[in-house]
Amino acid sequence: MTYKLVLLRHGQSAWNNTNQFTGWVDVPLTEQGEQEARKGGKLLKDKGVLPDIVFTSLLRRAINTANIALDEADRLWIPVKRDWRLNERHYGALQGKNKTEIREKYGDEKFMLWRRSYATPPPEIDPDDEYSQSHDPRYAGAPVPRAEALANVVKRVTPYWESDIVPELKTGKTVLIAAHGNSLRAIVKMLDNLTEDEIAKVNIPTAIPLVYELDENFKPIKPRGEYLDPEAAAAGAAAVAAQGQK
Amino acid sequence: MTYKLVLLRHGQSAWNNTNQFTGWVDVPLTEQGEQEARKGGKLLKDKGVLPDIVFTSLLRRAINTANIALDEADRLWIPVKRDWRLNERHYGALQGKNKTEIREKYGDEKFMLWRRSYATPPPEIDPDDEYSQSHDPRYAGAPVPRAEALANVVKRVTPYWESDIVPELKTGKTVLIAAHGNSLRAIVKMLDNLTEDEIAKVNIPTAIPLVYELDENFKPIKPRGEYLDPEAAAAGAAAVAAQGQK
Repeated sequence: MTYKLVLLRHGQSAWNNTNQFTGWVDVPLTEQGEQEARKGGKLLKDKGVLPDIVFTSLLRRAINTANIALDEADRLWIPVKRDWRLNERHYGALQGKNKTEIREKYGDEKFMLWRRSYATPPPEIDPDDEYSQSHDPRYAGAPVPRAEALANVVKRVTPYWESDIVPELKTGKTVLIAAHGNSLRAIVKMLDNLTEDEIAKVNIPTAIPLVYELDENFKPIKPRGEYLDPEAAAAGAAAVAAQGQK
Repeated sequence: MTYKLVLLRHGQSAWNNTNQFTGWVDVPLTEQGEQEARKGGKLLKDKGVLPDIVFTSLLRRAINTANIALDEADRLWIPVKRDWRLNERHYGALQGKNKTEIREKYGDEKFMLWRRSYATPPPEIDPDDEYSQSHDPRYAGAPVPRAEALANVVKRVTPYWESDIVPELKTGKTVLIAAHGNSLRAIVKMLDNLTEDEIAKVNIPTAIPLVYELDENFKPIKPRGEYLDPEAAAAGAAAVAAQGQK
């Protein structure tokens, strides 16, 4: 018995274009992002990878990526579960800020630390900041973070994986998770048992389904899984990595 | 304590344009249908009617109407439940057929009987017909009908209402049901306790939210509910009624 998991990072969103830190801010997909999602859905269909249930974050860029891809794959009718624990890393006080301005203001070292440190979160956001989610009704009852490092994301994703996702895999369903660069990296780190250094080098391209076949202990049969379009995935990962270099 | 229910019929779908019987055939929205859904979502937002959970059928025209409207209303993140029991009435052997051709072939009397009879279903579809859903994996385990009259729809919607929708209303949630002309008419008949003659005259316009406030016994405080745009709803209902006259 093996289990099938599909990870899908959302397509381009509005603040990719404007070069702003996004995190939990609920920006929409761009038209290009929608087109990427359609391509992702077409890959699912063409390769016969048909999700039986979809998990998403509470952010519209992930939700709409799932919706568009599933519509394309003729699977829009499958059950849906949404949870804040699949949200992007909370970028704290950086949310809404221009990346270039932050880099110039705080210097390369701090900038890269905030971007890629495993355990050091960026500065905390003021709960009353316009880009804070402390007063957003969708998170009522949830412990809305003021800033997160990847370590914090791993800490919230892992229990959700155990409590909600594993039971669905156990019934034999093909599970799709439509989420974000860092919530998906948290899952990849956990599945592939990567070190902090190893996960720092992982870049997940947008909207190309990453398929894991898992053994009975939920360990990957092929480490790092398989992208449904490996060539496009390599190019996409390089593009994501280059974003950090600019 | 009162409960709030919102009914939303999907926007224009592809076979409205081509004048074909649709039923359980999974045709997409037209561009006009998508625009209607956006307008419906804007009404929800402008009138402050904010769903806490959404129920849909398993058909993409209802699912996408919900997705587009909820995105517009900034509520795309709410929990979702889908069920075949909210599907459109199954049009049996008429599915996929041109309405004018059927009318000419079988005459006005039969045509109107199949369209509006409460208890007489159209002829049954062959399970191997290209427009049958007997082999569609989304209905695995469900008793896929071969043809339904409105009475059959009432019979499948009512237990689902009791088992799945009422419990959500009881928790105080505003419940949105995005579905179809006939599954929504089944709910209206049940809520307003209409006779067969009365429900025959009810036409639900597309994509205009119909809001019911329900008392503690789940009876409408205002019979027939309230459309969020009553003028557009009256025009829309007249247009739906006129379709039957052509």
